[in-house]
Amino acid sequence: MAQPFPANSVGLVSPQTLDIKQPLELDCGRSLPSYQLVYETYGTLNNDASNAVLICHALSGDHHAAGYHSVDSKKPGWWENCIGPGKPFDTNRFFIVSPSNLGGYKGSTGPSHINPETSKRYGPDFPIVTVRDWVKAQAALADALGIQQWAAVTGGSLGGMQAMQWAIDLPGRLRHAVMIAAAPKLSAQNIAFNEIARQAIVSDPDFHEGRYEDADTVPRRGLMLARMLGHITYLSDKAMRAKFGRDLRQGDGKANMGKPNFNFDVEFEVESYLRYQGQSFVDRFDANTYLLMTKALDYFDPAREFDDDLAKAYAGMQARSLVVSFTSDWRFSPERSQEIVKALVDAGKPVSYAEIQSELGHDDFLLTQPDYLRVLHSYFNGIAAELRS
Amino acid sequence: MAQPFPANSVGLVSPQTLDIKQPLELDCGRSLPSYQLVYETYGTLNNDASNAVLICHALSGDHHAAGYHSVDSKKPGWWENCIGPGKPFDTNRFFIVSPSNLGGYKGSTGPSHINPETSKRYGPDFPIVTVRDWVKAQAALADALGIQQWAAVTGGSLGGMQAMQWAIDLPGRLRHAVMIAAAPKLSAQNIAFNEIARQAIVSDPDFHEGRYEDADTVPRRGLMLARMLGHITYLSDKAMRAKFGRDLRQGDGKANMGKPNFNFDVEFEVESYLRYQGQSFVDRFDANTYLLMTKALDYFDPAREFDDDLAKAYAGMQARSLVVSFTSDWRFSPERSQEIVKALVDAGKPVSYAEIQSELGHDDFLLTQPDYLRVLHSYFNGIAAELRS
Repeated sequence: MAQPFPANSVGLVSPQTLDIKQPLELDCGRSLPSYQLVYETYGTLNNDASNAVLICHALSGDHHAAGYHSVDSKKPGWWENCIGPGKPFDTNRFFIVSPSNLGGYKGSTGPSHINPETSKRYGPDFPIVTVRDWVKAQAALADALGIQQWAAVTGGSLGGMQAMQWAIDLPGRLRHAVMIAAAPKLSAQNIAFNEIARQAIVSDPDFHEGRYEDADTVPRRGLMLARMLGHITYLSDKAMRAKFGRDLRQGDGKANMGKPNFNFDVEFEVESYLRYQGQSFVDRFDANTYLLMTKALDYFDPAREFDDDLAKAYAGMQARSLVVSFTSDWRFSPERSQEIVKALVDAGKPVSYAEIQSELGHDDFLLTQPDYLRVLHSYFNGIAAELRS
Repeated sequence: MAQPFPANSVGLVSPQTLDIKQPLELDCGRSLPSYQLVYETYGTLNNDASNAVLICHALSGDHHAAGYHSVDSKKPGWWENCIGPGKPFDTNRFFIVSPSNLGGYKGSTGPSHINPETSKRYGPDFPIVTVRDWVKAQAALADALGIQQWAAVTGGSLGGMQAMQWAIDLPGRLRHAVMIAAAPKLSAQNIAFNEIARQAIVSDPDFHEGRYEDADTVPRRGLMLARMLGHITYLSDKAMRAKFGRDLRQGDGKANMGKPNFNFDVEFEVESYLRYQGQSFVDRFDANTYLLMTKALDYFDPAREFDDDLAKAYAGMQARSLVVSFTSDWRFSPERSQEIVKALVDAGKPVSYAEIQSELGHDDFLLTQPDYLRVLHSYFNGIAAELRS
């Protein structure tokens, strides 16, 4: 029988579910009485449980980070480029654990789940969750899997922030923190983008104050706008230029050779791309989750309780760090990663830093830039070598 | 009686109206059978009509560029910083003409006016207008005022694009083109921002396919989102940081000293600012006009008919040019102004270029950066000296 998946894919995978009956106290002051964590694993945990790597996802990610959910599925997990046999996060060597976060959609407990205390859907009553809350929940998952210490915790963007929070909050429980395309906190401009996305969602009449599922509607327009807006920040201006230029959608495909329509239909390729991205997102994502994820980003600021001194926040860290940034990323630019590196150095912590020459922007962390994959590969080779020694 | 206005203001002003009965053939292939141009003037036209300066407004501007509409008015025209006795555009020397553009709101003929052919409001049937169309209409105004040649045509952003189009289309009719914070055409990213703003407006259920006035509604949510989004591009990230940092709105005003609310109300100062900007815009602007203005921006591309060679587009220019950019402007960055300068140099045209060290972003062209005002002052002193010679 023909192998239906590429040889370097983990192939067919299924999510697993962990039910946790202990309440989770949240930063916001509320608590979840009980909750579910949905996760996938790839590779095999070794005898001393020392080869486990935690993958943390970003705003629109989930537990499905690698492999395929069915033989008919065309679309692998979101970090397929990095996870698999022979890939940077090599499943021949590491046991990869990829949970979805609380507040998410179609995974761990979130707004579309039933609140056990009311027997009704959480909807907009789901508490605001923070990166710290996620780390706590992920630690409960590690406990359940018998993982006392992660070989590494890693992620890009909001995922990298979780790796950082792990290293600060639970210093003995990870050996490496790998923070990719992240920032020590959002800038005012980052928050502004999130706020407009949220306003687009909550001002959609189909939002029904977050109870759209009860009303059997979906705030499609708002969620679509939010996603379109996100896409501007994920792509560099240069990448947009390379990808679309100012090509008119109708015409012969050469730049500016077509005739403009002079109407409000899609005129330029970039408009077509954004509308497509927005529309397809609506079918796979949830508005309340989008609100919660952007809030988690806004509130992330580990230096806050340390007199706004990031080096102080890092003072107790035991993990070694790899920080990776992309030159074309303007959402979380290399300067933001350099803030992390500088604070680690100031705190006297070991850190490696790679600034990848790139073209595509923030999304590069999901893609196949060869220098990037080489850096990850080489760093994780080093981690694997530690395991053998 | 006490002088109610600052001494260097043009003081009380009133708009004037010109009715034009000749049809205007538009780029889109349609025509306006007749139209009104609303404009203000400041200063006095000299005997040989050689001291006239045309002011072209940007996306949300109008004919009210300087002075006050009433003694009770607190808010002067949008370019009050530059226009007045002793100011860069010195009304003791120059006769300033400031029209509003076709397609606008509360001024020259636009979507809220009555279509003489149908006796109904234009609404969404108002034709798409381009920068070239505006130049044609402004030329009709110049004819009516007896101005054969402008001493200068100037504007910032979309206004600077009109100055450029004047120099290309009607080379004999201006001596100087002063293009501030402009670009030779929009980038894919610029178009993407415009497209999301338009989608926010047209997807608002109160938009009623552009017939919201007939339906006695206003697409408030969409217009508000569009304006919030615009504001992100008008301010630099650094300016946002300086202005708001990540200050929590509630609290004692010091950065990060307040306690977060952990809810979806306004949490950070920047959110409060954006919501205010969005809401106040709705009361003074029109959705169909916003759509038209962003389309005029998208379509602006004078090199298009010259094999995408900007120097070729400039080949017939007779005006001397001043190009001004701001280092903190990321909407139309200095690189975009440098493209203009390079093409002018390649075309063998005289050009002066000033790159102003600034902090605030695109909006700097409206503000009081001293180097900026000095550059304008000095350049217009030179123009005034030509008049005397």
